[in-house]
Amino acid sequence: MLARPSVSARRLLDDLNGLAAIGGRPDGGVDRVAGSAEDRRARRWLAERMQARGLVSRTDDVGNVFGHTPNVADRRLLVGSHTDTVPAGGRLDGAYGVIAALEVLTTLHEHGHPAADALEIVSFWDEEGAQPESSGGMVGSTALCADPHLAEITGFVELHIEQGPRMELAGQELCVVDGIVGVDRHLIRAVGETNHAGTTPFVLRRDAGRAMVRAAAVAHDLMRSVSDTLVGNIGSFTLDPGAPNVIPGAAQLVLELRSPREDVLTRCAELVLEHTRAIAAEEGCTVEHRMLSHKPVVAFNESMRTLLEKVCRSTGRPAGSLYSYAGHDAGVISAHVPTAMVFVPSTRGVSHSPYEHTPDRLLTQGAQVLLEAVIAHHDSY
Amino acid sequence: MLARPSVSARRLLDDLNGLAAIGGRPDGGVDRVAGSAEDRRARRWLAERMQARGLVSRTDDVGNVFGHTPNVADRRLLVGSHTDTVPAGGRLDGAYGVIAALEVLTTLHEHGHPAADALEIVSFWDEEGAQPESSGGMVGSTALCADPHLAEITGFVELHIEQGPRMELAGQELCVVDGIVGVDRHLIRAVGETNHAGTTPFVLRRDAGRAMVRAAAVAHDLMRSVSDTLVGNIGSFTLDPGAPNVIPGAAQLVLELRSPREDVLTRCAELVLEHTRAIAAEEGCTVEHRMLSHKPVVAFNESMRTLLEKVCRSTGRPAGSLYSYAGHDAGVISAHVPTAMVFVPSTRGVSHSPYEHTPDRLLTQGAQVLLEAVIAHHDSY
Repeated sequence: MLARPSVSARRLLDDLNGLAAIGGRPDGGVDRVAGSAEDRRARRWLAERMQARGLVSRTDDVGNVFGHTPNVADRRLLVGSHTDTVPAGGRLDGAYGVIAALEVLTTLHEHGHPAADALEIVSFWDEEGAQPESSGGMVGSTALCADPHLAEITGFVELHIEQGPRMELAGQELCVVDGIVGVDRHLIRAVGETNHAGTTPFVLRRDAGRAMVRAAAVAHDLMRSVSDTLVGNIGSFTLDPGAPNVIPGAAQLVLELRSPREDVLTRCAELVLEHTRAIAAEEGCTVEHRMLSHKPVVAFNESMRTLLEKVCRSTGRPAGSLYSYAGHDAGVISAHVPTAMVFVPSTRGVSHSPYEHTPDRLLTQGAQVLLEAVIAHHDSY
Repeated sequence: MLARPSVSARRLLDDLNGLAAIGGRPDGGVDRVAGSAEDRRARRWLAERMQARGLVSRTDDVGNVFGHTPNVADRRLLVGSHTDTVPAGGRLDGAYGVIAALEVLTTLHEHGHPAADALEIVSFWDEEGAQPESSGGMVGSTALCADPHLAEITGFVELHIEQGPRMELAGQELCVVDGIVGVDRHLIRAVGETNHAGTTPFVLRRDAGRAMVRAAAVAHDLMRSVSDTLVGNIGSFTLDPGAPNVIPGAAQLVLELRSPREDVLTRCAELVLEHTRAIAAEEGCTVEHRMLSHKPVVAFNESMRTLLEKVCRSTGRPAGSLYSYAGHDAGVISAHVPTAMVFVPSTRGVSHSPYEHTPDRLLTQGAQVLLEAVIAHHDSY
């Protein structure tokens, strides 16, 4: 058995800083929306980093940047994440998984470890979908799933920050991710009657705005009571026509629900609609409903998860487990090849923000776990 | 004593139809927003009508169209309203008061009645304030209040449709208006913390949207319980940033309150703010408040109201009384000269709509009352 290589903490953190400087903001955040000049510059920087370390880089038609050793094997484990950000995003979301993958490949290649040639790294194009005209992100990973290149991929592992506070609250330094929650979006619209806000007595109104604020208040309570596994949001709420002196003739909101249980998603939407219809009827209004989108629950590959858990345990760093309440490229790839994810904690759970942070020690530890997982996967294959 | 002249129902209704054709819509409504080609055309049409009947018309710098007899007296009672409309408005709001004034002046002039020379009629510029860049309407009447012409005006009477259902519900054919309610607009804003709607547990959220829908629901109940004299509206409600997958970091609404009692306006706003602050505190949010506008209560001139009531009573058509919950040019003029208004019913209370309607008999009766009020005012002066 070969000596177990270690990642270089110095090089990992230097590379993170180097990437964060591209689109870097004075407040420490990063503006690197997919397709922007900064995003393209970051991808060129990544390719140049690879070449400087004796690796081969390739950018596909979509914009995904891949890297591997010169003597690459026919079939490889894919490891990586994305380098695009939301506007005023953080320096770790996506970038950490890409730079850690680069560090793992660099280290294995330097050591002449055979796992190096069975490894491919990636920065996917447009994970965030942050442009106004976006269809919702995951563009590069979705494209890969329809590309012949996929046939050469034996599995996918993505290292990422949690983007939530649960690991920090539970005192966990590593988590193997069970899967990605399902996400349903519902457009709910109450229709009443537009009228003069001065001359129309209360008893004669069919105030869609009143119906909808009442329904939204109840929906917030329902989301909190249906299941501990559910989180949800009402992030969009509009009145029509929206003038101070006009009784709203229509009001609509978007209800977003997330849970690892599809039955919980369905049950919560049913309850919200049932209560909304009852409230709307009291206000003389009707209710229209349309499901805007349904992203099913993703369960990651059990063998891959077990492998990651063993790696953590064997190195004395037992991992917790959790479902991701945010979407990731791994959720897309998972439908095609054995896939899993490892999370490191996010300080105070802050993400999509210039204040995104994870201590250097945990970033380095995560990268080392990734390296050992690559070796373990190679050994088991 | 001269024979009491009668207005011509035929000419009144023909003129209403003639005006309604300018900017007329296929659905029977009218598009004649102030300053539009249709609005300007309607004002030229009005001036030509006057000239065709041997009257003198004058358009001032602001756009107000005035009319009087060739032998006009130095001091006149002003009677009229406005010919501009809201977009997709009705054929009576404003137009009825102008055309009735024209009919009264025409009739008195035809009969050689001395009251004719002591009468001036007007279509005020931009009552509705319906253009996006509007400062809120009442432009022409406000301008008149700063014009030397005001010194020649001994009083103002405005005939108008009610724009609400109260007269119809009470079986009233005429109402003398007590005054115009005060109108306060409050901007109320809850400030919490924007965060990821998937990864942020409910207990760690400071959801300004949740705070504000709860507060708005309570505000609707408070408006209905503070005083029978109060009506109010929440017609504007926005979340910031307004994305389905982002917890709202801020939420704001505009609360509009109307009452003939200033103490009721103040009390209701205090109660809403008190409850909003308590709810926001429960949701970890703070509250910002700004009064956007305060239009004080207008009480019309008592002598002028008494005169109008007497005219109604003496002709066997006893008038009810009510406060107007909509604003009118009469509310502006009232601060400077003795002013009052007469309302006729609006069928089903519909206004600012193509379906605005009042039966022809009541339109004619209202114009006749206006004529007799002009004579009574002349006799009493």
